[in-house]
Amino acid sequence: MKPFYNNFTLGVLGGGQLGRMLNRSCVNFNVKTKIMDPSPYAPCKGVATEFVQGDITDEETVYAFGKTVDLLTIEIESVSISGLKRLQKEGVKVYPQPDVIEIIQDKRIQKQFYKDNSIPTADFILTDDKAAVANHKEFLPAFHKRGKGGYDGGGVVKITSANEVEKAFDAPGLLEKLVDFEKEISVIVARNEAGEIKTFPLVEMVFHPEYNLVDYLLSPAQVSEDVKQKAAQIATKVAEAFGIVGILAVEMFLTKNGEILVNEVAPRPHNSGHQTINGNYISQYEQHLRAILNLPLGATDIKIPSAMVNLLGEDGYTGDAIYLGIEEVLRVDGVNLFLYGKPTTKPHRKMGHITITDHDIDKLREKVDFVKKTIKIVA
Amino acid sequence: MKPFYNNFTLGVLGGGQLGRMLNRSCVNFNVKTKIMDPSPYAPCKGVATEFVQGDITDEETVYAFGKTVDLLTIEIESVSISGLKRLQKEGVKVYPQPDVIEIIQDKRIQKQFYKDNSIPTADFILTDDKAAVANHKEFLPAFHKRGKGGYDGGGVVKITSANEVEKAFDAPGLLEKLVDFEKEISVIVARNEAGEIKTFPLVEMVFHPEYNLVDYLLSPAQVSEDVKQKAAQIATKVAEAFGIVGILAVEMFLTKNGEILVNEVAPRPHNSGHQTINGNYISQYEQHLRAILNLPLGATDIKIPSAMVNLLGEDGYTGDAIYLGIEEVLRVDGVNLFLYGKPTTKPHRKMGHITITDHDIDKLREKVDFVKKTIKIVA
Repeated sequence: MKPFYNNFTLGVLGGGQLGRMLNRSCVNFNVKTKIMDPSPYAPCKGVATEFVQGDITDEETVYAFGKTVDLLTIEIESVSISGLKRLQKEGVKVYPQPDVIEIIQDKRIQKQFYKDNSIPTADFILTDDKAAVANHKEFLPAFHKRGKGGYDGGGVVKITSANEVEKAFDAPGLLEKLVDFEKEISVIVARNEAGEIKTFPLVEMVFHPEYNLVDYLLSPAQVSEDVKQKAAQIATKVAEAFGIVGILAVEMFLTKNGEILVNEVAPRPHNSGHQTINGNYISQYEQHLRAILNLPLGATDIKIPSAMVNLLGEDGYTGDAIYLGIEEVLRVDGVNLFLYGKPTTKPHRKMGHITITDHDIDKLREKVDFVKKTIKIVA
Repeated sequence: MKPFYNNFTLGVLGGGQLGRMLNRSCVNFNVKTKIMDPSPYAPCKGVATEFVQGDITDEETVYAFGKTVDLLTIEIESVSISGLKRLQKEGVKVYPQPDVIEIIQDKRIQKQFYKDNSIPTADFILTDDKAAVANHKEFLPAFHKRGKGGYDGGGVVKITSANEVEKAFDAPGLLEKLVDFEKEISVIVARNEAGEIKTFPLVEMVFHPEYNLVDYLLSPAQVSEDVKQKAAQIATKVAEAFGIVGILAVEMFLTKNGEILVNEVAPRPHNSGHQTINGNYISQYEQHLRAILNLPLGATDIKIPSAMVNLLGEDGYTGDAIYLGIEEVLRVDGVNLFLYGKPTTKPHRKMGHITITDHDIDKLREKVDFVKKTIKIVA
């Protein structure tokens, strides 16, 4: 591979907010970006060195795109694996590797992978359709997850008892035992081509009870050192099992009896790593870039505790986005605003996020509360 | 003015590294950028939402450009003041204001401004030409500075004694009494349209003895609280005297007897504020953007001490840039690399910078030494 600083072009499949923030790190490293997304309003448009509108799930489109770049990566999993495999076969570097993305794309295969590799995860049963779910009433309460196509809280339903079996998807999926968890936690781990591995400090996520989306995130997680170490070990084991090159977000449950179970992973920058831009020595985006360029990974230490609040479109509003309360929020010490440049808001759409940094965790939480109740995205 | 997040375009005159980093903050705020620079290889090309090649010192070019944006700013002082004044007269918002840039463009007028506003500065004598310098031998040793056109260490010569008068510029300038300083320090101060003012914590600069360029920068400056307060007060006074909207970098000398003298100012993001991206609650770039958009200014607190090393083209090399030692440097904990995307290196050219963060100042200095001796930009 030619030196990364020397007229080097990174191709990215997916042009959402994750690509938009990955692009920042590429600018720092003087890596040119060519980013493809189906939407002409994608957050990466006008930000990437070159933006290409195209179907990232189409084999031929992905193949042709990949032939024009020095290295290819993704910022979303739903991409054409066959296109990526053809490119890889012809010597184009594709990181993360197509076979890793392929396993992760399908939650059924992903779960089986954990089992096969002795990675702790909640008990599950594979189900082929709705009828199969009805056959496993003894396994309830459980989550029913679609094998493919779920994203951002979609593709998952909670089935508490037998009379809710109607809610199940009539498609290949899995029933996952409801975990009585204390906290949802996440470790972002990076592995470069040389096999060097580094983990980011553990973060804890507070989910919105209704939307099934991260409500806010706290870094570092308020848990014992022992939990932090165990979580880092598990994340490292997962990255090694996949042999991934790039970063991997490992979402886990910390159960009430102190067990850690892997929930699911994402082979790309992740919502649970936004705050690294402001709170850590290195951002998840730069770490991903370093990993796929086979550069030394950066130390991930926390510079200052941080929280991250997703800015979601308010219920009941669809149309040109209007941001209410934004000036009041900018008055708060340590607030950093990230808007994703999506012109249109709709209910629960991720329109941006706010990172807050403060040396004092209690003050951080107070600021989160203020930000959450003050900012509203309407139309 | 329409809301900043609503398809808002910021025009920027100058497309160098400062514009490149200002652009990052614009992306965060979803502000589109239209950036003009005479060079087709400017660091902002491929980074700005729209890049326009053009002469920023030409009145008509600047005027026509300004008519196409919602707000106009600069990242370099050498711009057409007459073009900006015409725009301002026709209601286009131009921040910093043309009359502020005009004073700062000419070091003679700038110095007189300090005197008129009781801002402490080194003694000086205005000189019209080389002959005038020869008439003031009693004032030596002194720096002779060109009134207009000096940049990055150019336009300044040290005249130690009468037999060096030949080194003086044969152009309007000023003789400035040599200051026996302890340290060069800088405060970046921001003022928004509403008159709100905030200062960044004081930084200290270590100059390269030969190149007359910042060698490395340390944040916070290692000086007493009293000096920090005094420097912040002076910077605030300067910003108020100018009535500037935007940020102003106030470079000062801390003399051996504890006096603080204003050296010169820059009405834009400045080399002495790069480290704010990684070390402070808010970067100088975002603060500038907030100020000119008349948004609340952000708290500037230090998250973690930081140092900034300019990456300069090595002596004796001109041509396509090759970066030596870059991997070794990326191995250092807390290193963040910023390359400016300039394809060609030449001696002492600013090609990028490295920010290093560490809670321990001594370790920070060790890392600076390692970075400086390890990285080399050749051709």
